[in-house]
Amino acid sequence: MDAFGQMLLDGSHSELVERNDRFISASTLNYFAPVRRWDTVERRALRWVRGRVLDVGVGAGRVALELQARGREVVAIDVSPGAVQVARRRGAKDVRLLAFEDVDESLGRFNTVVMFGNNFGLFGSPAKARRLLRRLRPFVDRIVAASNDPYSTHDPAHRAYQEGNRARGRMSGQLRLRVRYRDLVGPWFDYLIVSPNEMAGLVEGTGWTIRRLIRGNDARYVAVLD
Amino acid sequence: MDAFGQMLLDGSHSELVERNDRFISASTLNYFAPVRRWDTVERRALRWVRGRVLDVGVGAGRVALELQARGREVVAIDVSPGAVQVARRRGAKDVRLLAFEDVDESLGRFNTVVMFGNNFGLFGSPAKARRLLRRLRPFVDRIVAASNDPYSTHDPAHRAYQEGNRARGRMSGQLRLRVRYRDLVGPWFDYLIVSPNEMAGLVEGTGWTIRRLIRGNDARYVAVLD
Repeated sequence: MDAFGQMLLDGSHSELVERNDRFISASTLNYFAPVRRWDTVERRALRWVRGRVLDVGVGAGRVALELQARGREVVAIDVSPGAVQVARRRGAKDVRLLAFEDVDESLGRFNTVVMFGNNFGLFGSPAKARRLLRRLRPFVDRIVAASNDPYSTHDPAHRAYQEGNRARGRMSGQLRLRVRYRDLVGPWFDYLIVSPNEMAGLVEGTGWTIRRLIRGNDARYVAVLD
Repeated sequence: MDAFGQMLLDGSHSELVERNDRFISASTLNYFAPVRRWDTVERRALRWVRGRVLDVGVGAGRVALELQARGREVVAIDVSPGAVQVARRRGAKDVRLLAFEDVDESLGRFNTVVMFGNNFGLFGSPAKARRLLRRLRPFVDRIVAASNDPYSTHDPAHRAYQEGNRARGRMSGQLRLRVRYRDLVGPWFDYLIVSPNEMAGLVEGTGWTIRRLIRGNDARYVAVLD
């Protein structure tokens, strides 16, 4: 049931994501976008990506391919077999079917872990985020991760979802999502959207600090953690 | 839970429809399209629309508004309260919250019943179609209805759905659908897609015959029933 992977395999330009309050939204994909069509904040963040890189959530490989073109050695991971296949086919050199939570020192040292495309979300929950941040510390020098501020929305449906989360002791932007594609329904997964302040709180005591925030005109931003 | 109506009220340009095999698709709306952006077959079919008209499934009112502009008297119906509101707001003069199956002679005589936007589908099932066709006969002179040929697709998911239908004694294109919009989930409804030959078979013995088929370059067509 690799809904996400099949969507990439078909080169579909529309992504359907369902939240566990039944909210469903279609958005246009930028999984295949060349660097000139990336978010401004991601383009600006590229200069913080150095040395040997781990690309978390490779998708169709847009980030891995751009970094390879810039001479970086990139190891890319994804939990979607379809994504792994697409990223390899498009030229990503070292792509592995691996979950973020299964990353360890056996992959070698990394100068940078890259999580573009809102993929700070793959930290999943505050507990998991702190656990993974601590685990990465010994063999990772820097994390460059994109997120977006959940409080920038005025949409009543999103506000109500966030409030429901807080009422149950969860972070506002702790989303439970699944991908729908044609007749495929992906598994539910956790995805964590945080404000810059929330991120600063999360990383405290894990050995990481926010060195730089790259912000644009909207809710999206990239944090550089050292 | 008027998902469809809320979508129109918000002027959304993307419609999400889910089939009961979980197949979900997003398509771009033409509910608000002026006549120059309609399907060719619908534009060509306009000259068969005469006299006093019943517009079945008014949606945002595009057909009713165009016919009013051409001097027709139009009664429009829809089961969606949101659609009724939007069509009225946009200038449709006589819009009623009414299901197709509740249409009877109390609405007066009609020279033409119009079912554009694939709305032959609102006949729902073969049994319901034959029942409604017979019921309309005494007070309706003509039906101008758009459908599309279910056999034109080569998509394995659609082919499998059609085969499942036939295995259960249903027509290939007897769809069970619901509209999703944000966190709203509409009720399941039946929607009947037929080939021109199937339509000819359906109407047999109901007092109607296909006078004219207006076909284009794709699966969509309009039938004129007298």
